[in-house]
Amino acid sequence: MAEKIRLLPLGGLGEIGKNMMVVEYRGKIVVVDTGLMFPTPEMLGIDLVLPDFSYLRDRADDIEAIVLTHGHEDHVGALPYVLREIGFPKVIYGGMLTVGMVRSKLDEHKLGGAPLTELPTGQVVEAGPFSIELVHLAHSIPDMRGVIITTDIGSVFFTGDYKFDQTPVDGRPADVARLARLGSEGLLVLAGDSTNADRPGVSPSESSVGPALIEEFSRCKGRIIVTSFASNIHRVQQVIDAAVRLDRKVALLGRSMRKNFNIASNLGIANAPEGILIQPRDIEDFPDERVIVISTGSQGEPFSALRRMANNDHRDVELHSGDTVVFSATPVPGNERAVNETIDRIYEIGASVITAKDAPIHASGHGWREEIKMMLNLTKPKYVFPVHGDFQRIRLHSELAESVGVPPENIFRGRNGLPLEVGADSASFGEEERSGIIFVDGIELADPNDASLRDRRTISGDGIVVIVATIAAEDGEVVVDPEIISRGIVALDEEIGLNDELKDLVEDSLEKSADARVRNHDLIQSDLHDAVAGFIHKRLKRRPMVVPVVVEV
Amino acid sequence: MAEKIRLLPLGGLGEIGKNMMVVEYRGKIVVVDTGLMFPTPEMLGIDLVLPDFSYLRDRADDIEAIVLTHGHEDHVGALPYVLREIGFPKVIYGGMLTVGMVRSKLDEHKLGGAPLTELPTGQVVEAGPFSIELVHLAHSIPDMRGVIITTDIGSVFFTGDYKFDQTPVDGRPADVARLARLGSEGLLVLAGDSTNADRPGVSPSESSVGPALIEEFSRCKGRIIVTSFASNIHRVQQVIDAAVRLDRKVALLGRSMRKNFNIASNLGIANAPEGILIQPRDIEDFPDERVIVISTGSQGEPFSALRRMANNDHRDVELHSGDTVVFSATPVPGNERAVNETIDRIYEIGASVITAKDAPIHASGHGWREEIKMMLNLTKPKYVFPVHGDFQRIRLHSELAESVGVPPENIFRGRNGLPLEVGADSASFGEEERSGIIFVDGIELADPNDASLRDRRTISGDGIVVIVATIAAEDGEVVVDPEIISRGIVALDEEIGLNDELKDLVEDSLEKSADARVRNHDLIQSDLHDAVAGFIHKRLKRRPMVVPVVVEV
Repeated sequence: MAEKIRLLPLGGLGEIGKNMMVVEYRGKIVVVDTGLMFPTPEMLGIDLVLPDFSYLRDRADDIEAIVLTHGHEDHVGALPYVLREIGFPKVIYGGMLTVGMVRSKLDEHKLGGAPLTELPTGQVVEAGPFSIELVHLAHSIPDMRGVIITTDIGSVFFTGDYKFDQTPVDGRPADVARLARLGSEGLLVLAGDSTNADRPGVSPSESSVGPALIEEFSRCKGRIIVTSFASNIHRVQQVIDAAVRLDRKVALLGRSMRKNFNIASNLGIANAPEGILIQPRDIEDFPDERVIVISTGSQGEPFSALRRMANNDHRDVELHSGDTVVFSATPVPGNERAVNETIDRIYEIGASVITAKDAPIHASGHGWREEIKMMLNLTKPKYVFPVHGDFQRIRLHSELAESVGVPPENIFRGRNGLPLEVGADSASFGEEERSGIIFVDGIELADPNDASLRDRRTISGDGIVVIVATIAAEDGEVVVDPEIISRGIVALDEEIGLNDELKDLVEDSLEKSADARVRNHDLIQSDLHDAVAGFIHKRLKRRPMVVPVVVEV
Repeated sequence: MAEKIRLLPLGGLGEIGKNMMVVEYRGKIVVVDTGLMFPTPEMLGIDLVLPDFSYLRDRADDIEAIVLTHGHEDHVGALPYVLREIGFPKVIYGGMLTVGMVRSKLDEHKLGGAPLTELPTGQVVEAGPFSIELVHLAHSIPDMRGVIITTDIGSVFFTGDYKFDQTPVDGRPADVARLARLGSEGLLVLAGDSTNADRPGVSPSESSVGPALIEEFSRCKGRIIVTSFASNIHRVQQVIDAAVRLDRKVALLGRSMRKNFNIASNLGIANAPEGILIQPRDIEDFPDERVIVISTGSQGEPFSALRRMANNDHRDVELHSGDTVVFSATPVPGNERAVNETIDRIYEIGASVITAKDAPIHASGHGWREEIKMMLNLTKPKYVFPVHGDFQRIRLHSELAESVGVPPENIFRGRNGLPLEVGADSASFGEEERSGIIFVDGIELADPNDASLRDRRTISGDGIVVIVATIAAEDGEVVVDPEIISRGIVALDEEIGLNDELKDLVEDSLEKSADARVRNHDLIQSDLHDAVAGFIHKRLKRRPMVVPVVVEV
């Protein structure tokens, strides 16, 4: 078999090839992005969701580099866990802000020694059988980089998340010239973002948001609270610029808002004129009409600054009628309810709310259909591997590729764990590899099928009963009254009657076991379990977890 | 004080005056609607959410009637629980289909003897100091009735859920003439639906959906699976009519779909021509292009027929490429994620999906802004009490009322539990009453603040540890090795090392307690609790529920 480049997407939760891509050639590996996902409500007690990267465990020595496209959590958030499990690779590349944000994150995880290296655009570095080059693209965070990985049989381009913003806030549109050269040089594979493959036309420019914000702000008579993603530095910058123009002070609220702004400030990416920033605790010292607060919580996150304000539970800011809360963001799918709840609490307080439905105060960071087609037309890939999307968007991206002339047989609709194997003149899916998700549960990594998590689910719905029976070792007679401990079962916690009945039942079961003393400890426990579980189901139509503990003295 | 009519909205979860309204006059009560809410994901193990109707408990004898506007669960679903707690009232009124659906529901709850009575529109009945009349309106379920409640100081009109559909499927538009007469007679209070107070214009007619469905269906080459609300009988009828036209057989899937269609059929409200309906188990006997399946699951409900199909887990229908799933419904806020997941599973299978974003195949059952204004203009109320909406929509409805000339001081923006007290010439809010929500938990009713439910939440996130220590009664010495039972804690379930450490710790704690034997049982348990909880938090950064059980023998 001729040598092939192998592209293995890892991850789960509906999006394909979003969080992590393992690129393999001649036995060596480059990893593009190491992102995480956020737990859904049914993942009880789970803190974070990571791609299952066990594939990399045995291959740690083969990793030539990790390349990060940009600083969003879904592209870099799993890095500390990956590094802890597989050790430091030779090098970790990214753009300036990405490296700055990731360095701060790794420091918090006590992984400060990781070989993080800023790779300037246009500079080509060798990494084993690969060469790597970053290409500047625009997104909702500065310093977004597409990744060109070249081997001796051809190049693969990973777009990361991008849009073709012609008037980005930092004045640096996507490097269309480099993309065009990629096309004229002959690109083997394009692995491109599908996020907005369902939206017709071209996405609005980030710089169109600033004037819209100024227009809304100018109508506000009282305090303005703007909420947006903390990593959207250009958005925060535009709010600050608007504040300067409207002669208002700015307070940054929420840990990630302050942290990201500081990092970006230190790197010269963001800038607040002297005297414009005030401390949250000083907000009340200024007249309402002279203040803009920029806050986390645009997704209704439970402990965010905005949610606290909406719940009348923020240390520094008490919302009141006259305030206007401006949502310069749209809910990420799944967050609609939390956002709606937050908005309605604000209405209850009597403050006003402006969302992206009312005015063009948000712009997506992902290109729409015409931009996806432009990327295809510029880079002219032989093979197209649509990524970053659910099955629907992957299919829509495939249709766009067909519409610009890519032969259907050269378009590969994959799924996580299914590697695309690409030779100079052929491509096909290989054998499925282990993939999926793992959970961060406190400080532990856990498998989603772990019995502990199943147990939590059972107990969360139906409660738990522990029966402690103390019996004599010699004859199995009950020595002291059995103890029945229940948690999470309304009727047992309240109704004394039912508890007494349950106690009688336990004693009966133990007596029967004592009569048949030839039987063993496990059988006594399992009889006890069945008797109690049956009783509770009959009486309460519930199936709690029943844990019998038989102590012999 | 002159006699006043008192309107007390009961309920919770963000919507005001939606599920239940207690109307009081001269010490007597009429209850308008007894609906329920659905649990949000954080309500672990909760089956249903009811308005807290404890206000009615002491007042059971004063209830002259319960009046039901229509058969949707959020207007009638709490009735069995209300009847069980407060007994049967003198009479329960509703339209024909409402009474049919509620009768079936009460039979299932073994409450068949309830005094359910169909009240024809236009007929006025006396109930204590009230007279009651139902007015025909249009909604997404047949036999929707507004309620006029008249006292000797004036009338109150409860719109229920309505739209001014000029071409409803049953040919019976809202009784505008009666509404106009209500206005000319002089209406005291209008308690009107605010659901779509944020949508400009007039809602599309239900009968516009049929032709759009036929157009989409005609393009489908394979099987068609339509999903919609089971109670939307007119929608189901339109799908059946389309099937007749396109020469396809129809299978009804899902318990509520079959049940509602049967009830409506028996009442002559729905009609399937002879031979058109087939059994789900016979679907495979017909060619794909000759079948339409109508299924529950438009909201992505976990155990619905559609979700099962999407999970490849339905007894009768296996989805495959060539099938088209048509969502003739939009996600209720909060259900977006479940719906998106369902859609993406269908795409993964390779089937096609058509939603209301792609074609006008759904129409809301609630009137839009111009319809709300029309209701205000027709009924010309002295006082406006906007209900059925969150704080935002209540505010928008109030603005609409102002825009048609209602003086701001005559518009009352309330909240659940706050009674509006209306005299012939004045109205104001009274003293707050107990309101909120209660949970149906298995067969029990539970308070949301119940300790059992808090316990479930704690355990669901962090697990539980039970320590069973058996000590000698005389000297407190440990008699047998302590047992440590954990559930839902990954590290404890797996790492033997940690368990051993924990055992040592428990024995240490017990020994210390034995030394200080003056101390009592409770103190031994609390020391044990603190030692174990502290250890686990230090080592695992988790705060599980810790339950120490000290047995003295």
